[in-house]
Amino acid sequence: MAENMSLRAQFEQRLQNFRQQMAAAKQDAALIFSLDNLRYLYHYSGEAAYGVVTQTSLVLITDYRFVEQAEEECVSDYLPTTVVCRDRDQQSLGQAIATILQNESARHIWFEAEHVNVGAWHAIASAIPQAIFTPSNGVIAQQRKVKDAWEIAQIKAAANIADQALADVLPQLRLGVSEAELALELDYQMQKRGSQGMSFATILGFGARSALPHCIPSQRTLQVGDLIVLDFGAVVNGYRSDMTRSFVAGEASPQQRAMFATVHAAQQAAFAVLRDGVAAVEVNAASAAVLQASSLAKYAGPGLGHGLGIQLHEQPFISPVCCEHLKTNYVVTIEPGIYIPHYGGVRIEDDVLITEHGFEFITHAPKHAELPL
Amino acid sequence: MAENMSLRAQFEQRLQNFRQQMAAAKQDAALIFSLDNLRYLYHYSGEAAYGVVTQTSLVLITDYRFVEQAEEECVSDYLPTTVVCRDRDQQSLGQAIATILQNESARHIWFEAEHVNVGAWHAIASAIPQAIFTPSNGVIAQQRKVKDAWEIAQIKAAANIADQALADVLPQLRLGVSEAELALELDYQMQKRGSQGMSFATILGFGARSALPHCIPSQRTLQVGDLIVLDFGAVVNGYRSDMTRSFVAGEASPQQRAMFATVHAAQQAAFAVLRDGVAAVEVNAASAAVLQASSLAKYAGPGLGHGLGIQLHEQPFISPVCCEHLKTNYVVTIEPGIYIPHYGGVRIEDDVLITEHGFEFITHAPKHAELPL
Repeated sequence: MAENMSLRAQFEQRLQNFRQQMAAAKQDAALIFSLDNLRYLYHYSGEAAYGVVTQTSLVLITDYRFVEQAEEECVSDYLPTTVVCRDRDQQSLGQAIATILQNESARHIWFEAEHVNVGAWHAIASAIPQAIFTPSNGVIAQQRKVKDAWEIAQIKAAANIADQALADVLPQLRLGVSEAELALELDYQMQKRGSQGMSFATILGFGARSALPHCIPSQRTLQVGDLIVLDFGAVVNGYRSDMTRSFVAGEASPQQRAMFATVHAAQQAAFAVLRDGVAAVEVNAASAAVLQASSLAKYAGPGLGHGLGIQLHEQPFISPVCCEHLKTNYVVTIEPGIYIPHYGGVRIEDDVLITEHGFEFITHAPKHAELPL
Repeated sequence: MAENMSLRAQFEQRLQNFRQQMAAAKQDAALIFSLDNLRYLYHYSGEAAYGVVTQTSLVLITDYRFVEQAEEECVSDYLPTTVVCRDRDQQSLGQAIATILQNESARHIWFEAEHVNVGAWHAIASAIPQAIFTPSNGVIAQQRKVKDAWEIAQIKAAANIADQALADVLPQLRLGVSEAELALELDYQMQKRGSQGMSFATILGFGARSALPHCIPSQRTLQVGDLIVLDFGAVVNGYRSDMTRSFVAGEASPQQRAMFATVHAAQQAAFAVLRDGVAAVEVNAASAAVLQASSLAKYAGPGLGHGLGIQLHEQPFISPVCCEHLKTNYVVTIEPGIYIPHYGGVRIEDDVLITEHGFEFITHAPKHAELPL
């Protein structure tokens, strides 16, 4: 079981899996430009760094600003990484990569075409003229869909912080408080409890603003009868949580009750089919069927959920156009919603871990809808 | 004077300047991929958007998540922008751009090669096969060096928030407080005072950790005699401030006094030559001469400062290798430092506005070095 593997062994497994993919694609080396992928492969959490991977070496290129952090994070406790400290005034990134690769007789080289800009890539490729470069097409993003035990523990820790922070600030969700005030308190409580910044800019809308998919907290204050949507998350060791809860300020109207009941039922319908092997489109369809059968069908939001980990939105995506099957140890969100323009929205979002026969909740905050005033 | 121009007139001026550059380079259209540049040209502050500029049209492409924000921010009060809401499941970005350009008979097209990744660019360029694409090589970044009155006002507002937040938290800089606790309080106070998040992740180091150029706040607690480095900033309407203050917990030792005196003198030497037209290398040299003449020369940090605005680090860079001249209405940081490994650091950083005959301080927090215990 993964639970019994040491952290180092889990990082070794990740690297071994990646090298197997390199070998299968007949690539002698791979260039890593994504900081998220450097965190995943190297346990590096800084900035301004680039990875060079071969079957026998693992190199991280950075500069004087991050070299101490790189040596602390990547070398001592984890994989046998060579940290190269580049003087940016003396050596281009392409030259640094060429120097590393000249002893490896690397000819076929993967690069992350989706994580390097056109200008930078032109300069790098020019410095290594003998190489045959091929885009690696998100191979690490594919690998990252399956979380190992340590990753799952970090996401759970982040979700736990968010659960507790919500409990902390719910008493402040009173008439007259502004969206911005409440969002700031929530962010502050998550960080007090150990979150490294925010998983994303907290989304918080009162009244009609709760229907905006990405509502930026404003000075709008809470009024009796408002719908409230609160979408937020914490970060632990670079892993994110993502949870939405919706409320009514006071007693819900019949329309609001219908919104909550429909969204709740749509989420339950997705939960009912979640398990290893289910097609993502089937999960989406189960939830969409409930929304479409309701009187609120035309207000249903598109898409149902997404993978979650180092990135807030990562593979797989649970939508009508996704052609994937969910597997054990995927972590995904399930977040149906109804958004009535100029009136308000209800979204309920949980993070779940896919298991062999079902799923496990990662988020636990209660879903009571009516707030006592 | 720029001060008398309306906000709309300032945006019109920016666009006119950019279109003049397009015409001079014989470009029929320009594609904008940088969100920072969209903020600068369009007054758009959301995500997932792309700009298409011609001599007669100004188009912003986004999707359902940000279309309301785009219409509110770009259309009503500012420039006559056409907002295109793209259905991402139905139309690729390249197809959307091709559709916009087909009525413009655009053949020579600038694109921001430093702001689009290789994979995305390949797809876009393939959708517009008749175009001749040329990298625009940071032309908007060049234009952004000169701040207009509204931009200067935003940076001043951000710096003012940071000044006040520092005054708020200085009484909490007591023996036993941790770096992480103090950084969180500083971040919280900035946001309470209206900062939109942080200008960057607050750098805060006590004791030997103050010598790390990018110290991430830890659980290290403040001890008598510690050096303290605090580097932080606020954000107002997308414009950033950036200020460093250094302290000693209690009475400074002779070595610490020498560090402060040297850094202070190095900053003053830079201030003495700051004015419209001065070469950035001359400013750097004035400061470096003081550091190099001191007994602490070997501990001097590299580089002196950088431009500041929508980005934290933008052009011009004040370093030994910069070949630019500073001009009126540039905003730059002046931040000499001395870093003694395993002992501690002192850095003093202010933001200044270059004027015709000198400069104006944007940051105002006092620079007293010794903290009463």
